[in-house]
Amino acid sequence: MARPLILVCNDDGIHAPGIKALVQAVEKLGDLVVVAPDRPQSGMGHAVTIGEPLRITEKKNLFPGHQAFETTGTPVDCVKLAVDKILQRKPDLLVSGINHGSNSSINVIYSGTMSAAVEGAIEGIPSVGFSLCDFAYEANFELAAKIARQVATKILKFKLPYGTLLNVNIPKIEASQYKGLKVCRQSAAKWSENFNERVDPHGKKYYWMTGEFQLLENSTDTDEWALANGYASIVPVQFDMTAHHAIPLLNTWQLDAHS
Amino acid sequence: MARPLILVCNDDGIHAPGIKALVQAVEKLGDLVVVAPDRPQSGMGHAVTIGEPLRITEKKNLFPGHQAFETTGTPVDCVKLAVDKILQRKPDLLVSGINHGSNSSINVIYSGTMSAAVEGAIEGIPSVGFSLCDFAYEANFELAAKIARQVATKILKFKLPYGTLLNVNIPKIEASQYKGLKVCRQSAAKWSENFNERVDPHGKKYYWMTGEFQLLENSTDTDEWALANGYASIVPVQFDMTAHHAIPLLNTWQLDAHS
Repeated sequence: MARPLILVCNDDGIHAPGIKALVQAVEKLGDLVVVAPDRPQSGMGHAVTIGEPLRITEKKNLFPGHQAFETTGTPVDCVKLAVDKILQRKPDLLVSGINHGSNSSINVIYSGTMSAAVEGAIEGIPSVGFSLCDFAYEANFELAAKIARQVATKILKFKLPYGTLLNVNIPKIEASQYKGLKVCRQSAAKWSENFNERVDPHGKKYYWMTGEFQLLENSTDTDEWALANGYASIVPVQFDMTAHHAIPLLNTWQLDAHS
Repeated sequence: MARPLILVCNDDGIHAPGIKALVQAVEKLGDLVVVAPDRPQSGMGHAVTIGEPLRITEKKNLFPGHQAFETTGTPVDCVKLAVDKILQRKPDLLVSGINHGSNSSINVIYSGTMSAAVEGAIEGIPSVGFSLCDFAYEANFELAAKIARQVATKILKFKLPYGTLLNVNIPKIEASQYKGLKVCRQSAAKWSENFNERVDPHGKKYYWMTGEFQLLENSTDTDEWALANGYASIVPVQFDMTAHHAIPLLNTWQLDAHS
């Protein structure tokens, strides 16, 4: 039987320490192909490149023993290019990350790392994104890598139901304080922006985005609770964004054609 | 009582005919403020601008009688800038569009127009995105504008439950063939990419993204069915991406801390 084919993506760029940690974490589980952006693409969400062409460059020896390609596109572009142009067959697993910084709660929607995993799931590939709650370039990925290997092994064994993927976040704690993986739901939260206003040398204003994370609940079944209490969080994610529970409500609106 | 405050956004840019049609459609319903990108931003998904500063320029007389601002940011940036820097109070309604082209089914996840509406909902603003299934610059927005006014009126009257927003798509048909608005769920669908490979004058390959829309189901309760059968589709959307139904399954995986 063929070894599993594993596609490795991220949004911090092919040179980020996080993707190197991920490659080392899962390389014993199958044949790896890395396809990642040529530069950091954090916060790109599910952006795709329509108005410009894309380039692919093979990076020999960047990940010894594995094929690796950088592209000029977004994380989602990388997955699309991998599926259509680079890979010979549909991969058995897509792993994205390990992200430098949290993608828990509402961050899932802004994250290029998670959007790559979402795109994999849309393609029917069992997919997972991993994020370490530490923005530092020199973050310690040891615990995160161990968890990534563990979760990747489980996905290869059990697969995932169509339409779902996984969002795994690892707290910034000592391994000795780690309590285990906890299956969670996405916390209700938002970023409260506070743009930093400055004036350029020509007298014109410009704005840097800054913001504060606002947690809107603290239930014990949420990812934020898990992360604050020594657990890594694992949230099943879906790309069906329908608010099914709101359909009956809208049907009471009497949206008549001729009103 | 104060007139409703309505924030108008889009992803095709502040000069697109679609946003002009939307302004005209809803201007009788309240006080409008337009905040939109200075250039087309289709396919930007939920991208935000972290590594570069943003600029805001007031566009006097672009929409007679209304305040209007263009920004150098993405559609989501526009909403964030509007809420933090431009508006005096939280708006009563956010309308995004009218998009040139469909945002039905899986397109919701790639769409800047819908991401602006999602961001509005995250901010707690009743939000809706409108899209006309016609990519043409000179598309006829008459029916779409009528539907936009109708739905906006309903949202101002009934509000929307926290965490939900609306995705309204209007078919490219004659008004006489229009059967009405149909509440739907998001169809299962995907884009099957077929990158167009070319060679530049220096002998290096580059790729243009092209693709084919693949509908994966044809149930009568979906947006694609509605649009193909003379209805405008209205899908309630949520930004809680948790696949709640998959939580019990994951709990059978025995994700033990020390395995």
